[in-house]
Amino acid sequence: MSAGPVLAGPDGRIPDMSAQRRKGGEVMAPIRVGLLGCGVVGTEVVRQLQTQADDLTQRVGAPLELVGIAVRRAKRIPEKAAELGVPESLFTTDSAELVTRGCDVVVEVIGGIEPARSLILSAMEHGASVVSANKALLAEDGATLYAAAEKHGVDLYYEAAVAGAIPLLRPLRESMVGDQVHRVLGIVNGTTNFILSRMHETGAGFTEALEEASALGYAEADPSADVEGFDAAAKAAILASLAFHSRVTAADVYREGITEVSAADVASARDMNSVIKLLAICELSPDGSTIGVRVHPAMIPRSHPLAGVGDAFNAVFVEAEAAGQVMFYGRGAGGGPTASAVLGDLVAVARHKVVGGRGPGESAYAQLAVRPMGETITRYYICLDVAEKPGVLAQVAAAFAEHGVSIQTVRQHGHADDATLVVVTHRAPDSALAATVAHLRTMDAVRAVASVMRVEGDLES
Amino acid sequence: MSAGPVLAGPDGRIPDMSAQRRKGGEVMAPIRVGLLGCGVVGTEVVRQLQTQADDLTQRVGAPLELVGIAVRRAKRIPEKAAELGVPESLFTTDSAELVTRGCDVVVEVIGGIEPARSLILSAMEHGASVVSANKALLAEDGATLYAAAEKHGVDLYYEAAVAGAIPLLRPLRESMVGDQVHRVLGIVNGTTNFILSRMHETGAGFTEALEEASALGYAEADPSADVEGFDAAAKAAILASLAFHSRVTAADVYREGITEVSAADVASARDMNSVIKLLAICELSPDGSTIGVRVHPAMIPRSHPLAGVGDAFNAVFVEAEAAGQVMFYGRGAGGGPTASAVLGDLVAVARHKVVGGRGPGESAYAQLAVRPMGETITRYYICLDVAEKPGVLAQVAAAFAEHGVSIQTVRQHGHADDATLVVVTHRAPDSALAATVAHLRTMDAVRAVASVMRVEGDLES
Repeated sequence: MSAGPVLAGPDGRIPDMSAQRRKGGEVMAPIRVGLLGCGVVGTEVVRQLQTQADDLTQRVGAPLELVGIAVRRAKRIPEKAAELGVPESLFTTDSAELVTRGCDVVVEVIGGIEPARSLILSAMEHGASVVSANKALLAEDGATLYAAAEKHGVDLYYEAAVAGAIPLLRPLRESMVGDQVHRVLGIVNGTTNFILSRMHETGAGFTEALEEASALGYAEADPSADVEGFDAAAKAAILASLAFHSRVTAADVYREGITEVSAADVASARDMNSVIKLLAICELSPDGSTIGVRVHPAMIPRSHPLAGVGDAFNAVFVEAEAAGQVMFYGRGAGGGPTASAVLGDLVAVARHKVVGGRGPGESAYAQLAVRPMGETITRYYICLDVAEKPGVLAQVAAAFAEHGVSIQTVRQHGHADDATLVVVTHRAPDSALAATVAHLRTMDAVRAVASVMRVEGDLES
Repeated sequence: MSAGPVLAGPDGRIPDMSAQRRKGGEVMAPIRVGLLGCGVVGTEVVRQLQTQADDLTQRVGAPLELVGIAVRRAKRIPEKAAELGVPESLFTTDSAELVTRGCDVVVEVIGGIEPARSLILSAMEHGASVVSANKALLAEDGATLYAAAEKHGVDLYYEAAVAGAIPLLRPLRESMVGDQVHRVLGIVNGTTNFILSRMHETGAGFTEALEEASALGYAEADPSADVEGFDAAAKAAILASLAFHSRVTAADVYREGITEVSAADVASARDMNSVIKLLAICELSPDGSTIGVRVHPAMIPRSHPLAGVGDAFNAVFVEAEAAGQVMFYGRGAGGGPTASAVLGDLVAVARHKVVGGRGPGESAYAQLAVRPMGETITRYYICLDVAEKPGVLAQVAAAFAEHGVSIQTVRQHGHADDATLVVVTHRAPDSALAATVAHLRTMDAVRAVASVMRVEGDLES
């Protein structure tokens, strides 16, 4: 059987049925879009809605009509309206009213927990699908948002919440949903990656590198969400939820930022032909019964693919049973990249409004528990200042053995009063490794624990 | 307003509404799946359907029931049934009958144009959504399949057709659909990447490296689809169609394979601190009015991110207006990775059968024309054996100038009868570059054009 002739038009060409479906001879009613927030991302969203209007109409199957833009301060409206070339009347400071105005889709790019959550819930109650870039809210209370979306029969999409323009959540939610994900590991915060990259390039300390990041606009006025790891932890919670079909909130994530990473740590890493990166790691336990979710600086060998991810770029590996290892790389932040992800979601949910259907809802059936950090199996790099006396190495080795930690390599540098022991362990429970370090700090033979860092990948010794 | 208390259960926890929606107290009717083909990929699909049955049921919202497996030869059935632990009665050699059996989804992993096309069209006519891994068919006649899917209100998904387990088509069709893609560039054929990688590592010629690839199972008995670039060209057509919302078929793609790549070319690349890769390149012309789609070997600098993609891996860059550059990397072939992509699609289309809705149909509204290769702007590396006589360089330079090709660098090696000129050009229309090479071949001063290769990225000179 060949359907060619049956389906082809009189000219022998197959007509583009998608266009026909969308238009069907009549003009489609526009999809009403309300925008909450007009900062860097919101501004870029409005720009793209303008410059790409015709393409977006074709891709959605109906025009996207921006019905309102909610901003916090009235006095910014004239300037914003002029900048974007839209009437001032499009702006409002009453975001609560905007979401009740019969929007088909509400785009939320204000961030933070409240009022974002209340606005999203109200928008859904009034029949709007929601596109959000709000990692903090999704990581803290995604379940409430999903439940409301389910109740009101609308979509909840948030690709922009993790890794900006890099398609990562849709691949996890949809492309790899037939596979068993074992591990998600990556660099998901651009600010800290920039800072660590600069520390490696220039030998600068953390404070100096942070100042440079601020001057270049890579760090916010209050950088704590980034440098303390809160931003990465929220993203890790979202990634773990999707990868393992379980509810994981930001509070479940073990978190260490980069404020304690010193120039000496960076120098140590260089000596080991390694670099320090802030990693987000979500992994299934070997028996599949629990998951570990953590964010912390880690030493990785220069040969590791993540070692070359510089500047403010993001990169994430997903390891799955059948797929093997898949990597995603790109710009994780910034107005353009984030707007790209928001608009992709906007097209998807608008298309659902036109042709029917809904995207996947919450998938948390597996209900896997998050195991405590102490039970996580990891490896440490430890650098000790020791007295060069006979028997010191034996005493140090005994301390590791006492806690059941096996040493992979040990190197001794210097002599007399200036000796250094560099130890890289085999894999062990994090609690045993932490207890070993605490023990080492109490030993007379150990002058100082100069550097402690978790290790991912195989360091050269 | 806070919807927390309204939505939470008596225990204060938000119930997992997704599970509730799916089950609603009653047992969902199974989704009937017919499988066409039980080779490497089909076998792995059946295995995953068995080992992951419970997870897939939860993710789809209903159990997936394999209702039949069509194979070509009856005599293989007992062996296959035993290998997979399924009854022989599940198998059939009557694929045409299987697709009329009231399947909800038909998975096609037999490849080739016919009978795959007729089977898919018949399946759709009988109400089945289709998941296919068939790049050749999609690239030759995707429009017919899309039109049939549209007519019968079913889904057509084919993530596995390009880059195996790497989520690439869904990101292009959905995640990045709100953005303007400028360029897709990548390594999409694992066999040729393995062969070229071996030629670089060992200095082997093409034939020798192909033999090694065959011995290791990386190349098929008839390797022409891979080494002549047909496989990559089909994938390029699919990528260009999705990226530029236009109909591009395999016949539109300029194609050169790797059979002419010599050990001398590889040595030349090494001298330039470069590597040779078979690239698929889909790009919008600068004015956005046409697209170029091509597959050919190219010299890229070792510093280029694609240079490090070794073995049989695939990697693809997508460059878009707002997103910037995004990269996808992973295993592009093999039973496991391909099955992973097939199962992701299977879950998606099965979910649509359960909860309603359909994925995106064909998007070809832009109808951009494919420009001829001669109009494509590219760069050449040219290595000439010349007589070392005064004035040779001037004659050669004049030939380039005559065709309007500007030289970026020229290096002269050796002397007397054994001189070599290495020329790297600036960007120029491919036709001008080709005409220059043809001209050079006619010149007395040029003994031989030893190597010609297109160049991507900035070579060090």
